[in-house]
Amino acid sequence: MASRSTRDNTAKKSAADAATALWSPSASRVRDRERKREAVIQTAARAFRARGYHNTSLDDIAGILNVTKPTVYHYVENKEQLLFECFQTGLAQIMAGFEEVADSKATARERLSLVITRYAEAITSDFGWCMVQAENQDLSPAMSRKVKLLKSEIDQGLRKLIRDGARDGSLRKCDDKMTAFAIAGALNWIAHWYREDEPLSATQIATRYLELFDLGLQPR
Amino acid sequence: MASRSTRDNTAKKSAADAATALWSPSASRVRDRERKREAVIQTAARAFRARGYHNTSLDDIAGILNVTKPTVYHYVENKEQLLFECFQTGLAQIMAGFEEVADSKATARERLSLVITRYAEAITSDFGWCMVQAENQDLSPAMSRKVKLLKSEIDQGLRKLIRDGARDGSLRKCDDKMTAFAIAGALNWIAHWYREDEPLSATQIATRYLELFDLGLQPR
Repeated sequence: MASRSTRDNTAKKSAADAATALWSPSASRVRDRERKREAVIQTAARAFRARGYHNTSLDDIAGILNVTKPTVYHYVENKEQLLFECFQTGLAQIMAGFEEVADSKATARERLSLVITRYAEAITSDFGWCMVQAENQDLSPAMSRKVKLLKSEIDQGLRKLIRDGARDGSLRKCDDKMTAFAIAGALNWIAHWYREDEPLSATQIATRYLELFDLGLQPR
Repeated sequence: MASRSTRDNTAKKSAADAATALWSPSASRVRDRERKREAVIQTAARAFRARGYHNTSLDDIAGILNVTKPTVYHYVENKEQLLFECFQTGLAQIMAGFEEVADSKATARERLSLVITRYAEAITSDFGWCMVQAENQDLSPAMSRKVKLLKSEIDQGLRKLIRDGARDGSLRKCDDKMTAFAIAGALNWIAHWYREDEPLSATQIATRYLELFDLGLQPR
């Protein structure tokens, strides 16, 4: 067994290595680029929500960020891709909810509850508007297909949890497609009325929605 | 008591009067105008849904109806008013649901169920898209106010039924605002996915949604 001081030294050394790697010029540049890219996407999400997609130009977004338009083009190819990135960032939060419960031994009811909470949190985030409105913005056929594919993944994930619940007895038997549509629809609609000055937090909204769906899906 | 033949003659006379009035040139013109106006609104609702509001011109609508653009202007002032008429026609179907139960002695739960069914029927009608999308079409401030006012009436109607249910014991106590938002959101979202070739009828969809909400609002 290694002595305490040896272990301490080893720990110190690997921490130092990690720090060196993290702050090396190239790692720093990568991190910096990623952080700037995220800032461009978040700024775009807020601008699209505030002014609408068609009323917002890449010039506007560059203006808000106080950079030039070529700088914005450094991170995204065009405005449509920017909208897609906003859409995808929001959806990734929901997908993270599905991943969180993927290996869980909890009942389908409990897993669905967690996914619904993450969904509500994503929809009330800066990306909520883009998640819900992306489809209505005259996207190119290729982009439209990508958006539909990602939305379909979420839909299929919800349906599976609803079917799992009928199987493990934690939820009542029901039309999984219509139930998934009703739940996702109610959650998506939050983007239409949610404002930053809303007195309820995302979690408080999620709790109230969840109560309705959870009771509505109780086994009889 | 009047003899049978007198009654028959009176009935015949008033029926004849009614018919005369109905088919008099002026009544016919009014009826005809109303019918043509409805055709313009329904055609517009379908065109807006199929192509989007901004991609549809009054020329397009005149073309579909095989009339001139001035003929369309005979029924509506401009395209924005036409969108509003479509919106209002859909909302009127929901309002009719509220009126249907206004004097009813049924429980709030039963009254809410009927309103939800009428709501689902309205959203799956030709006017569903306009009901849900009108707000997102860069309306003038005046038109935007009118749209918001009508939507608020529906929202307040739902909230009142939910509160009535807590009072008469037919529904559980809950956050009436969030519950109304969740129900209306789920129903509104139908307009995003519903297509005319959907295998489920409006009533079948309504039944499945209703089951979820009805059970979700059962008193404990």
